[in-house]
Amino acid sequence: MNRSKPLHFLESSSISDSHVWLWGIPYDGTTSFKPGTRFGPNAIRTASDGIESYSPYLGRDLKDISFYDCGDLEVSFSSVEKVLDEIYAFAARLFNEKRRSSAIGGEHTITFPIVRAALEHYPDLHVVHIDAHCDMREEYAGERYSHASVMRRVLEVIEPDRFFGFGMRSGTEEGFRFMKKLPHYYPFSLDKMDELGDNIDSGTPLYITIDLDVLDPAFFPGTGAPEPCGISVKDLHRALLTLEGLNIVGFDVVELSPPYDSAGISSSAASFIVREMLLIMGNL
Amino acid sequence: MNRSKPLHFLESSSISDSHVWLWGIPYDGTTSFKPGTRFGPNAIRTASDGIESYSPYLGRDLKDISFYDCGDLEVSFSSVEKVLDEIYAFAARLFNEKRRSSAIGGEHTITFPIVRAALEHYPDLHVVHIDAHCDMREEYAGERYSHASVMRRVLEVIEPDRFFGFGMRSGTEEGFRFMKKLPHYYPFSLDKMDELGDNIDSGTPLYITIDLDVLDPAFFPGTGAPEPCGISVKDLHRALLTLEGLNIVGFDVVELSPPYDSAGISSSAASFIVREMLLIMGNL
Amino acid sequence: MNRSKPLHFLESSSISDSHVWLWGIPYDGTTSFKPGTRFGPNAIRTASDGIESYSPYLGRDLKDISFYDCGDLEVSFSSVEKVLDEIYAFAARLFNEKRRSSAIGGEHTITFPIVRAALEHYPDLHVVHIDAHCDMREEYAGERYSHASVMRRVLEVIEPDRFFGFGMRSGTEEGFRFMKKLPHYYPFSLDKMDELGDNIDSGTPLYITIDLDVLDPAFFPGTGAPEPCGISVKDLHRALLTLEGLNIVGFDVVELSPPYDSAGISSSAASFIVREMLLIMGNL
Amino acid sequence: MNRSKPLHFLESSSISDSHVWLWGIPYDGTTSFKPGTRFGPNAIRTASDGIESYSPYLGRDLKDISFYDCGDLEVSFSSVEKVLDEIYAFAARLFNEKRRSSAIGGEHTITFPIVRAALEHYPDLHVVHIDAHCDMREEYAGERYSHASVMRRVLEVIEPDRFFGFGMRSGTEEGFRFMKKLPHYYPFSLDKMDELGDNIDSGTPLYITIDLDVLDPAFFPGTGAPEPCGISVKDLHRALLTLEGLNIVGFDVVELSPPYDSAGISSSAASFIVREMLLIMGNL
Amino acid sequence: MNRSKPLHFLESSSISDSHVWLWGIPYDGTTSFKPGTRFGPNAIRTASDGIESYSPYLGRDLKDISFYDCGDLEVSFSSVEKVLDEIYAFAARLFNEKRRSSAIGGEHTITFPIVRAALEHYPDLHVVHIDAHCDMREEYAGERYSHASVMRRVLEVIEPDRFFGFGMRSGTEEGFRFMKKLPHYYPFSLDKMDELGDNIDSGTPLYITIDLDVLDPAFFPGTGAPEPCGISVKDLHRALLTLEGLNIVGFDVVELSPPYDSAGISSSAASFIVREMLLIMGNL
Amino acid sequence: MNRSKPLHFLESSSISDSHVWLWGIPYDGTTSFKPGTRFGPNAIRTASDGIESYSPYLGRDLKDISFYDCGDLEVSFSSVEKVLDEIYAFAARLFNEKRRSSAIGGEHTITFPIVRAALEHYPDLHVVHIDAHCDMREEYAGERYSHASVMRRVLEVIEPDRFFGFGMRSGTEEGFRFMKKLPHYYPFSLDKMDELGDNIDSGTPLYITIDLDVLDPAFFPGTGAPEPCGISVKDLHRALLTLEGLNIVGFDVVELSPPYDSAGISSSAASFIVREMLLIMGNL
Repeated sequence: MNRSKPLHFLESSSISDSHVWLWGIPYDGTTSFKPGTRFGPNAIRTASDGIESYSPYLGRDLKDISFYDCGDLEVSFSSVEKVLDEIYAFAARLFNEKRRSSAIGGEHTITFPIVRAALEHYPDLHVVHIDAHCDMREEYAGERYSHASVMRRVLEVIEPDRFFGFGMRSGTEEGFRFMKKLPHYYPFSLDKMDELGDNIDSGTPLYITIDLDVLDPAFFPGTGAPEPCGISVKDLHRALLTLEGLNIVGFDVVELSPPYDSAGISSSAASFIVREMLLIMGNL
Repeated sequence: MNRSKPLHFLESSSISDSHVWLWGIPYDGTTSFKPGTRFGPNAIRTASDGIESYSPYLGRDLKDISFYDCGDLEVSFSSVEKVLDEIYAFAARLFNEKRRSSAIGGEHTITFPIVRAALEHYPDLHVVHIDAHCDMREEYAGERYSHASVMRRVLEVIEPDRFFGFGMRSGTEEGFRFMKKLPHYYPFSLDKMDELGDNIDSGTPLYITIDLDVLDPAFFPGTGAPEPCGISVKDLHRALLTLEGLNIVGFDVVELSPPYDSAGISSSAASFIVREMLLIMGNL
Repeated sequence: MNRSKPLHFLESSSISDSHVWLWGIPYDGTTSFKPGTRFGPNAIRTASDGIESYSPYLGRDLKDISFYDCGDLEVSFSSVEKVLDEIYAFAARLFNEKRRSSAIGGEHTITFPIVRAALEHYPDLHVVHIDAHCDMREEYAGERYSHASVMRRVLEVIEPDRFFGFGMRSGTEEGFRFMKKLPHYYPFSLDKMDELGDNIDSGTPLYITIDLDVLDPAFFPGTGAPEPCGISVKDLHRALLTLEGLNIVGFDVVELSPPYDSAGISSSAASFIVREMLLIMGNL
Repeated sequence: MNRSKPLHFLESSSISDSHVWLWGIPYDGTTSFKPGTRFGPNAIRTASDGIESYSPYLGRDLKDISFYDCGDLEVSFSSVEKVLDEIYAFAARLFNEKRRSSAIGGEHTITFPIVRAALEHYPDLHVVHIDAHCDMREEYAGERYSHASVMRRVLEVIEPDRFFGFGMRSGTEEGFRFMKKLPHYYPFSLDKMDELGDNIDSGTPLYITIDLDVLDPAFFPGTGAPEPCGISVKDLHRALLTLEGLNIVGFDVVELSPPYDSAGISSSAASFIVREMLLIMGNL
Repeated sequence: MNRSKPLHFLESSSISDSHVWLWGIPYDGTTSFKPGTRFGPNAIRTASDGIESYSPYLGRDLKDISFYDCGDLEVSFSSVEKVLDEIYAFAARLFNEKRRSSAIGGEHTITFPIVRAALEHYPDLHVVHIDAHCDMREEYAGERYSHASVMRRVLEVIEPDRFFGFGMRSGTEEGFRFMKKLPHYYPFSLDKMDELGDNIDSGTPLYITIDLDVLDPAFFPGTGAPEPCGISVKDLHRALLTLEGLNIVGFDVVELSPPYDSAGISSSAASFIVREMLLIMGNL
Repeated sequence: MNRSKPLHFLESSSISDSHVWLWGIPYDGTTSFKPGTRFGPNAIRTASDGIESYSPYLGRDLKDISFYDCGDLEVSFSSVEKVLDEIYAFAARLFNEKRRSSAIGGEHTITFPIVRAALEHYPDLHVVHIDAHCDMREEYAGERYSHASVMRRVLEVIEPDRFFGFGMRSGTEEGFRFMKKLPHYYPFSLDKMDELGDNIDSGTPLYITIDLDVLDPAFFPGTGAPEPCGISVKDLHRALLTLEGLNIVGFDVVELSPPYDSAGISSSAASFIVREMLLIMGNL
């Protein structure tokens, strides 16, 4: 960990024995179009200066949550595999210490090693995937581990009926064909998020991965693969509120790319989503 | 007044004995996050070059309204108190001359002295507050007068039942607790703006203060404290149309910060809102 | 034609005897506020690198369409009239060779010569005009041919009952008065696009001109005359889907101005709309 | 003239019977690469807010000079010829009223009609041309009047031995061949500006045209055709100081394109050069 | 102190009993043209990620210096006087603890209280002022303490013959007249910095204040009052090397304004200057 | 090769049997600070639209050179090693076909495989390295092949006395210690480039690698690791002119990162350097 600057709105509660640990993963080595997500964690922390710690939607304040921002993971720049191992090692440590994980990316590839680590601790883990893209390629540019194939990897370790995909609006024909065969596949919007509660009970361990490019580029220009016809931050927020009361053991927020966010509105949105997710997850 | 460049779409009607005077207040001395609103008045005037003087929504043209753009107030950079006095003095002169005031900011702090001046002329003044933030701190950074406490100051001179707050979605826990005790408090959206007509009659003198950060950062990136989950310009416009026929004696449009508006869409939106408000207020 | 770089997602099908030809027209000589649309064709091609060739909305892939990107027309910078002649000549050639035309601008003025050429080949041509602005001035700055008067010119060669206008929300009083007298005039939104099918039968030759500034500046900041209160890309897309099954002989997509599109979201939106229109038109 | 906002640092002396009149010419109709110089005059005025009226280099203050900022010329968007006529008419009026002309562009094409007007009043006019480009094409894109051919036009009305060219570092082979035949041709730098005094006496009427792209793009990024290997503002300033004591009857400063000047340093440089030229010319 | 993120290149040596303490002062309350310097300290720290800790110019590495980055001072937003008191208090503590001060701004006003605190500890203090502007106004906008008058205040506590001013190229006529009466006044460049060694001996306590706008806007666009005709970073660096061997008890680096530094080159330059100054000062 | 758009100024001579082939290598997989150089080749081609094909410095025109722009190499995103193999394969083909190579990056890592391929064809190859950074790390982030260690790899295949390094001003202490032991090491400037002719005869095969970050960030902001105190484009150009008459068998121009080049001046500079190098190399 090479950064110690905490998220602004969490400062008062930065206790290292907190139940929830937030960590940054500044990795974008497989990004194919516009790199830059490695600057995501830092931008989310800076933008948190402009966001209150109190959520009027939830009526709760981050000051009342026990959590700790432990900085950024130091990632190497050589092979993807080495990076995935480094992420896995830290995530495994968190779950072994009975903490919940709140990871901020970085590109989407980081999700796979965290899910793997979580699965070892919670064999009954269910995964919720929110994204504009399928990320379901068998491989991409000759590589099995990449942002474009990460969910295919996840589905190699998670049973299809424990996987819920929401919001996809871009992919190859083959990717969509693959998705359609999944039991819980809800493309184009998050309107069906409230069906989650019907399919799983409140004790089931849940991992939530939020690729912020599910948002429309108007609301979230700062990402490497902006895809038109997305949803608003309000839509995403409304959907996340349906997670209240569920047993979230970890989540990640990925694909913020600050170089494409000149006015900082994407960083603000990401920081806001992190606050709400921390309050939802931490409310146990 | 040190600028004489008029709003473009008003040029033909720039008569100094107009009923409505528009003035800029380039002040951002207490802005806590991202300063820059001092460039707001100039940006609104420049953007007006790209906005027609005719409103197809209202079916009226600014050419038919009697009003005058009298330039920017020259503000000092020393203490907040001195600036508030300078604003008060000019506003008082306007109301004494029986003109209506159309002020463009600048940060939100400027509203308090205008309201004070209006109140002296219209003892029955009612205030409509449209904003993303409560602005209800008792003090901010040890200071009573700031953009974060301006509405608390207003509520020290206006009776609570004459105050209407719409759209707030960010603030401290204490700020929201304070707001909730007000008789006319409508957070998160402007959907309840049409209840205004039920609570006041058409002759009641009204002052409208519009903090443009009530808009979502997608529609209005150019502001110092962008807050996710806001409304669209269309939503704001629709709400403002409910003011038609009411006795608006003044309004302000604040918190446009051009350095964070690279494509100029925030300036266009602000200029558009000013046009519509001028047509609504001037239609008497 | 001085550019040979094809639209990325079309590369595999770039056969010069294709039924559909896509061409760029990098002209912005009459733009009155913020020039830059001459860079539009290049930006749409570059952004197409980030857009998949498969549309999950339509369930079809561009790979299955027979079309060809023939590059940019070389336009001169002298008089408008000469440029219009050059555009007319190329469009006439396309229609004579029984191809369908897919033109990417450039400013809106380019539509008139293409319509003229199409009309000679399809005497029964109907025109659909999607735009934020009326573009109905008799002349603009002393000039008959300009982006602000282009549709007035079109209405001099097309019968009013063969002209359908959608989405206008800005113009002069006179422009709106003129529009209102047209039989098929639907301002402010595209909700009435499905009435097209009621008015024309599936064999009628249709030309579609899409001024992208019909989109709200939040979704499309990269344009020279951003007009608040527009529609989302999703709204535009939904409306375009009503064109499925109609006999589209050509379309254009105009007014993308890359210098005002720092994050590239406007170029992405334009590229996406081009993909969908190619799939809709090519599905014959 | 449609703007009345004066240059900031000239405000106190804005008397309409001044000896020197400053006017903006927001025209960029023939710009071939990156348009935007039409926003130049406005940007120079805004940047003048950050420049002192006192020059420590010259030891003089603009307050002591009799001059007037008469705003921007309203130019039409149709043919180049019409625009040139409009510029000629205003310049002719200035010279007839025995004023000196200080024109701010706009693209370089504007120089020709001013020189024509000056020549009628001062038959012995000499012209100094400072530029990165030769601007010596016989025609450009089939057009005789353009930024790329303007100096060829000037040389059709001015005798070669009354023409001095400095700093050219870009052009066609034919352009350089043409330049080399001129008696006073000094490419690549302004080091030979002090030879001016050797060639003309102090009473000779001089017109100075300064294409700011003579500056290196590091110092002046805000221009449409940035050409590497230019000079610094200090180099340009030093060269202009050699004009002290000469009989300058007019000058222009052209090719500032604000859309490519994100930090505003080009506008500052242009504003600074205008101040120094006003002080040098006005010191009579 | 509300930030704990250290300067990257100093991390290994961050011991709180270091001889040199670096602190940020994010204050820009009196900035008259383009505010934003409050973001300076954070930007310098982020840019330090891209700068090596080893200086090939000096042949020394920051790892060998004993120093500590103690974060940013928390400044209030009310009156200038209160802020100056807060800065004075912290600086006084540093000097009392026998540490050397390395302050990063923020606007130039912050220099005065540090000099005051240093003077109490070192009665023989000499001050070196490097700047584009005189900063010698008696008052500015009715206020005694501001970035435009800060050096006038310093000269009220420091004897003129202990004050050395270098590089000024902008100011009022009165400001330059005042400067010229000073015994050690060297405008326009830093070429005379080597005369410092002739005037003071190596044991004399020196305070160096570096207003980075002494740099040309090409090299340092990210500042609120860019002034053409400045020097290069290389020129500034060369001048600072003449300070080697002198007894520097503190320095500050001020007026970096990140909102005007889109490519980050100003932050890099500031970070570089801080590294070199730390190595020069720390070499005792 | 997936791009067919040629460099603008080369269009007329795009013959595939040319002696010189230009190719883009859009790779930035090991970039440690600010990625983006993968967009370099495209930006250089676009900027070439604004650069003349004639060089007044050399008195020659690109039209007279036999060369061909064969587009961009398609690189995979998995391991560095695979990418280096792909580059090597294409370079080997070029040299086998007796062509000269003109490669545009991409990050600096691409140089190593080209040098390896050249060396096989020209056993007597000498290498000229122009750079701000030593790039001499034994490994970087645990990886042998990276932009920070590329020249160390080159020195494993090239004898030290056949290696010439110019301009380095940043690196670790160990990197500089390593450089100093080289026989031909000239840090901080390119002033010693003319010594090349003294050390090698005109027939010696030379490979030139130009890391554009040798330029000062003022002249070249668009790069991932901007380092202050660099040289101007004019300085670089002057140094390159000393290569006239030498036997250059290939060169590369690397580290242009367009996302940090808002005004496009870095792309223009890179395009200019490519033109001059093509003319110098092609003059055989």
